[in-house]
Amino acid sequence: MARRARGTRTRESNTTGVVASPYIQRVLPYFDVLDEEQIVKLESQVDWIFEDVGIAFRDDPVALDLWRKEGAQIEGDIVRAPADWVRSLCAKAPKQFTQLARNPERSVTIGGTNQVFAPIYGAPFVRDLEGGRRYGDMAAFHDLVKLTYMHPNLHHGGFVTCEPCDVPVSKRHLDMLFAHMTLSDKPHLGAITEMSRAQDSVDMAEIVFGKDVMDAHCVIMGNVNTNSPLLVDKVVTEAARVYSTRGQGMVVVPFILSGAMGPVSTAASVAQAMAEAMMVCAYVQLLKPGAPFILGNFLSSMSLKSGAPTFGMPEPVISNYAIGQLARRVGLPLRCGGSLTASKIEDAQAAYESADSMHSTMMAGANFVLHSAGWLEGGLCTGYEKLIMDADRLGSYQKVLSQGLDVSDDAMARDAYGEVEAGGHFLGCAHTMRNYQTAFYEPQLSDSENVESWEEVGSKDMRTRANERVNHMLDTYVEPPIDPSIRDALAAYVAKRKEELPDAWY
Amino acid sequence: MARRARGTRTRESNTTGVVASPYIQRVLPYFDVLDEEQIVKLESQVDWIFEDVGIAFRDDPVALDLWRKEGAQIEGDIVRAPADWVRSLCAKAPKQFTQLARNPERSVTIGGTNQVFAPIYGAPFVRDLEGGRRYGDMAAFHDLVKLTYMHPNLHHGGFVTCEPCDVPVSKRHLDMLFAHMTLSDKPHLGAITEMSRAQDSVDMAEIVFGKDVMDAHCVIMGNVNTNSPLLVDKVVTEAARVYSTRGQGMVVVPFILSGAMGPVSTAASVAQAMAEAMMVCAYVQLLKPGAPFILGNFLSSMSLKSGAPTFGMPEPVISNYAIGQLARRVGLPLRCGGSLTASKIEDAQAAYESADSMHSTMMAGANFVLHSAGWLEGGLCTGYEKLIMDADRLGSYQKVLSQGLDVSDDAMARDAYGEVEAGGHFLGCAHTMRNYQTAFYEPQLSDSENVESWEEVGSKDMRTRANERVNHMLDTYVEPPIDPSIRDALAAYVAKRKEELPDAWY
Repeated sequence: MARRARGTRTRESNTTGVVASPYIQRVLPYFDVLDEEQIVKLESQVDWIFEDVGIAFRDDPVALDLWRKEGAQIEGDIVRAPADWVRSLCAKAPKQFTQLARNPERSVTIGGTNQVFAPIYGAPFVRDLEGGRRYGDMAAFHDLVKLTYMHPNLHHGGFVTCEPCDVPVSKRHLDMLFAHMTLSDKPHLGAITEMSRAQDSVDMAEIVFGKDVMDAHCVIMGNVNTNSPLLVDKVVTEAARVYSTRGQGMVVVPFILSGAMGPVSTAASVAQAMAEAMMVCAYVQLLKPGAPFILGNFLSSMSLKSGAPTFGMPEPVISNYAIGQLARRVGLPLRCGGSLTASKIEDAQAAYESADSMHSTMMAGANFVLHSAGWLEGGLCTGYEKLIMDADRLGSYQKVLSQGLDVSDDAMARDAYGEVEAGGHFLGCAHTMRNYQTAFYEPQLSDSENVESWEEVGSKDMRTRANERVNHMLDTYVEPPIDPSIRDALAAYVAKRKEELPDAWY
Repeated sequence: MARRARGTRTRESNTTGVVASPYIQRVLPYFDVLDEEQIVKLESQVDWIFEDVGIAFRDDPVALDLWRKEGAQIEGDIVRAPADWVRSLCAKAPKQFTQLARNPERSVTIGGTNQVFAPIYGAPFVRDLEGGRRYGDMAAFHDLVKLTYMHPNLHHGGFVTCEPCDVPVSKRHLDMLFAHMTLSDKPHLGAITEMSRAQDSVDMAEIVFGKDVMDAHCVIMGNVNTNSPLLVDKVVTEAARVYSTRGQGMVVVPFILSGAMGPVSTAASVAQAMAEAMMVCAYVQLLKPGAPFILGNFLSSMSLKSGAPTFGMPEPVISNYAIGQLARRVGLPLRCGGSLTASKIEDAQAAYESADSMHSTMMAGANFVLHSAGWLEGGLCTGYEKLIMDADRLGSYQKVLSQGLDVSDDAMARDAYGEVEAGGHFLGCAHTMRNYQTAFYEPQLSDSENVESWEEVGSKDMRTRANERVNHMLDTYVEPPIDPSIRDALAAYVAKRKEELPDAWY
């Protein structure tokens, strides 16, 4: 069922031929949906959770000891703390920071008015038109890293674009890191599932960037979920001790299916998500003041038929807008939303849900958008075609955000009205000739021809066209250049650690 | 190729079983993307068009005479007028007005914070999974009126849901009006292609509502395009003389493909659209001060490959947001956007484009959204399945707009945190049990089940599910009750006019 193997050419020249859009520097205003009364209500709920409800830091005495030492109120493993204190700790995190990429042209600034798109994270399955649905493996992982590297609208590589299930869990993070570090030169995340794996990630990043650069800059980040409701386990706190203590980034994301891991109300779930992520941010700032931190939110609604999570629905849409506003008030970079769907295939449902989810994510000002391309099945499956379909659409959002509405004198086109009469047309006028080549964004996968032209070339639907594009991309992939000594050092690190580690499959 | 004929049952009781969502009364704030400088630039361009460029009122001496008599500057057929005067005339139009429906429960208020969704208008072709693509006919028209009537998220019937090409052009408006007036009890539009057809529409509406009601209320509207650029032909001015003089509504819509009917820049096209529509509004207010008027905008981008119009792209998205803000400043109800796409079928392209187009339409505050469901092929084709797929998604927008984020005490769910421990779940707690049934909107056509459950019921994509729903709806359609004497009078009017009119096919 696997895709056919493809030879990987290594390029000799110094340019890769991959043109990346820069990350988005937004000029468009934000869409603030909350009024003062709503803000007060939500923020006082957040503060009430800090002070009265508390958040458990479980199975990690080291974390609990730090909280105790710093003066938090501990009861069992529940940590409660004055809201002012938690907020003042969060204020120590940078409002924006830059994650360096191996290729400096692909470094991204996260926070403020900047918005960065990364692909799906964490799916155990993959799907494409030829191979159908199957477990992810290292071959698929390589394909997905290459596609992400090649697509101009993805600014960041993410990390687990699929789970490579053919490699032991205890070792796969090494192969995944090696793939990101050699098959792509975009920035990426590291492992978090166990403290030693987080350490491997940081150590391998140090091989790529060198100790001095890493001491001074964020070059890798860990992305972790809290165990909602109101629970932070040691995966989170241990990853923070590795990444944050080293000055690297942490993305902390409460995943709340409203009605299960949070109250069935959107407002309460939003407040809970803020409280959980901010409490971890405060912990991170206790570890290392000024460590880069991204406040995450992943809120899903529920199908009443089955209790299954639903995506692209009005509740997560409004929560995206709301949390954008709340995050800006706290001054923390935000991760939320994505191109999310519960659909199993690349059909209209997938696209409707992904578009509504992503439109609100974009307008909400999310600074780091994991899952911005490739999602199927509520995140259980990475679609090759879906990845490219979503990524193509991201170019549209990029233009809306970074250009807004141009009202320069040239954009007002007054000279054109001197040339064109009432009832005439602007097709050949000087203003059009000057501007038409940059006037419109057209995704490569949209077919806007008339029905006859479309039928002539085979009446292909979007996923068929996406499949052709995927194959073309993989066939023309060229590895970006890398210093051979760095590549060798990475390979040696991976080999050594694989020797040391047992094969563990869970 | 036509669908199988279906018997139309007439119901006897007084309830129709069709539950319509009320039109949207928005609580969500607007998304204002323009700053003061942009607004000044755009509005001064609009004023410059009024005063210096002018707009042609062609082939209609009656319209030109009125402008001349009222003091506009006429040169050939170009009308120029002081901007203050045009704006003061526009200010005479109501900021919002109610269009009565035959069933009072379905009357809609258009303008202000109200938003009303209507289906596609004007497609010569139809498509469904069984019949494929074919010319529209009266049977298809009946089907589409029924589906629109039955779908709770469509508040308004529109008018030309497809062109019934099997009826002569000279007579088809009569059959279309009769269908809207008897197969549905939602509000609808009338004909505009010729003055006598507009008159038939108004006369038939008077049969339904009676002269007194019609004298005091808007019960029907005409929707017309200007001939961009900068040209208003007699179709527009004659329709205005029929509808507006009778106190009925006019929707006036510049259709601008940027680079063809307007400059290739979005800002200039937006300003031109404002100027064209406002100039017609001014004309309408000269005819009858206070006549209901909807300022329309239909802006499309262009494929560089072929010059074909493209939809759901960043340029129309930003234009939707911008024109929403400009229309609110002028104080006129706005028609813009819709669920637009250039795709030929109900695939992911159709859904991505429709969703981005509609998301921005919705957030922009469009008060009357024609084309909110059913579009394919840039408006050349009405999809049966697409109509229902889009309409299902409209429920999500409806919830976002009309509910915003509920932060009531119950929504904050503090009692739930007394029941649920850290790491627990909210599935059975009292707050969830109180609220879960109304907590989430779930479109009927979204499948959020896991892949195994989805495969068990046939691995159906969204359009297959939509096709089943369409067939179920048409099979269970029941005609809404109507006073038999009104029905007879309408039938007699249609019969008499068909006698009088020649058969003309173009």
